[in-house]
Amino acid sequence: MTEDALIAALRAIVEVPVAGARAPIAGIGDDAAVWQPSRSHLSVATTDALVDGVHFASDAMNPRDVGHRAMAANLSDVAAMGARPVLATIALGVSDAIDEDWILACYRGLDALARANRTSIVGGDIVRAQAAFLSITIVGEVRRSNLKRRSGGRPGHVLATTGPLGASRAGLELTRRSLDLDDAARAAAEEAFARPRPRLAEGTWLAASGHVHAMMDCSDGLSTDLGRLASASGCGATVESVPIAPAAAAVAAAAGGDAFDYALNGGEDFELLVAVGARAFSHLAQRFAVRFGRPLERVGTLDAEPGLRLRVPEMEPRDLKPRGWDHLAG
Amino acid sequence: MTEDALIAALRAIVEVPVAGARAPIAGIGDDAAVWQPSRSHLSVATTDALVDGVHFASDAMNPRDVGHRAMAANLSDVAAMGARPVLATIALGVSDAIDEDWILACYRGLDALARANRTSIVGGDIVRAQAAFLSITIVGEVRRSNLKRRSGGRPGHVLATTGPLGASRAGLELTRRSLDLDDAARAAAEEAFARPRPRLAEGTWLAASGHVHAMMDCSDGLSTDLGRLASASGCGATVESVPIAPAAAAVAAAAGGDAFDYALNGGEDFELLVAVGARAFSHLAQRFAVRFGRPLERVGTLDAEPGLRLRVPEMEPRDLKPRGWDHLAG
Repeated sequence: MTEDALIAALRAIVEVPVAGARAPIAGIGDDAAVWQPSRSHLSVATTDALVDGVHFASDAMNPRDVGHRAMAANLSDVAAMGARPVLATIALGVSDAIDEDWILACYRGLDALARANRTSIVGGDIVRAQAAFLSITIVGEVRRSNLKRRSGGRPGHVLATTGPLGASRAGLELTRRSLDLDDAARAAAEEAFARPRPRLAEGTWLAASGHVHAMMDCSDGLSTDLGRLASASGCGATVESVPIAPAAAAVAAAAGGDAFDYALNGGEDFELLVAVGARAFSHLAQRFAVRFGRPLERVGTLDAEPGLRLRVPEMEPRDLKPRGWDHLAG
Repeated sequence: MTEDALIAALRAIVEVPVAGARAPIAGIGDDAAVWQPSRSHLSVATTDALVDGVHFASDAMNPRDVGHRAMAANLSDVAAMGARPVLATIALGVSDAIDEDWILACYRGLDALARANRTSIVGGDIVRAQAAFLSITIVGEVRRSNLKRRSGGRPGHVLATTGPLGASRAGLELTRRSLDLDDAARAAAEEAFARPRPRLAEGTWLAASGHVHAMMDCSDGLSTDLGRLASASGCGATVESVPIAPAAAAVAAAAGGDAFDYALNGGEDFELLVAVGARAFSHLAQRFAVRFGRPLERVGTLDAEPGLRLRVPEMEPRDLKPRGWDHLAG
């Protein structure tokens, strides 16, 4: 299949107009995508790459899920700024390990999640590569007053996540070995790993609150990402509670693993981590629970003292080292 | 070196404010880059990926040139829309074949060319990969009235390029074998291959003319890209002249190669290809020559009849097949 023929097949997937999205002025088939940016918003852009054999396994994973996960990781970064996505470009590295069917299924996964979040895939590049890869860039927009950076945290702010953690790490465990597990826990862990949901609705809702001072996503693991938020804010942090997803607890129990470690260091949960003014926290958490049907999980506080400390019930207090994902060590 | 340490070293290169560029509101170190888009312009975005062993050779090429070429390919796509670049994000795949020094030198090449074109590098991703790759996305902007698409050509329009072709292909030949060649031709071919210049000034100048109806860049070779412009415009085309760069002629003569083939099928010259109203062409070409000190090279015309035809002096007329770069065959 030639490049032009493959591009034609991919256009048939992604060029069906996206309901609720702004139509691009030019898309695939020109030198660049073109759109009219909002006159009242800031623009945001984020790029994330996934490599066969490192971030996914083309011979073991459903290609549609590979596409979903790649798109989820990028949408999650947009959510973490308090922004909404507008459009995406995709660079695809094609190796001998993936064929036309694989590529089309992967694009269906990319396209379905983008579409569900009102995002148009408008262009990219297809290149030959020794190992397949996907590099996605998403452009989005955010009202200036809603923009949430990592650096807005201050000592005394409450740290919280939009959900419990560790389910994606539990799902990874299920891809590595067969475990005796009840169906609901298995399905939840598999879903969290294979088809994670970026927290876009939660992100824009939290961004609209003046009491949320910093936000980021937990894609690399709470211990790593919390350290990054604290450091960007010129603070340290104390972790007082680590919310463990039920699926993480079930899989860890069956695998003889440590659910606390899954939740603290596992990564890829794509929950958002926020720093919230202490006096406003309980009211915000109440409203969050009403709006989203689950709690805003309090995990600790930002401190003036640099470094990370772990002070959870029934564990010896200790300093916390980032143990999450390092993309170069990985 | 950890990811965070490498990112700190790269930030030291790219975060020096870019003279003449709009300062980003957030850049590297947050979940996404943030900027204020122009209220009076459209936004454009383009993505291009380069893979070690396919588009460059990390063991044989200067890493600074690898960065330069990667940035040039993307800036050229922005130029081809008539737009000017604003910011870039970079996804870098790090293999065992490249070390910290290589990465820093590559980023210096990326940064220098971006900076020379008032473009800020504002973010990206660094991942582990079996083979190194660079995937770049550039966002730019263009006045709606200046936007030039591939599809604006009509039968009768004159096709022209912003310069002669084949010098990059000649430079590639020099990387493959040693040739007896005069110094000026060698330097010109090497420069065209290793440090191509994206035609941003030419692109914005041509975009401002209402007589330029379609534009794209020649990165994949004239025979391939001219076919794409004609096809997007619902036309065929006749090639009446193929402007051969002096360095291409000199290298082909020394190598026993075909300079006409270098120019027609070589690719990576990054000259712009335009479709111009026939009556306006000679006046536009005169003004172009005055402004840029070299001719706007007439290569042929768009026709109502589909397909590509070659009708150049001293060659038998024949149908033309795209022989340029196919990214999947490559």
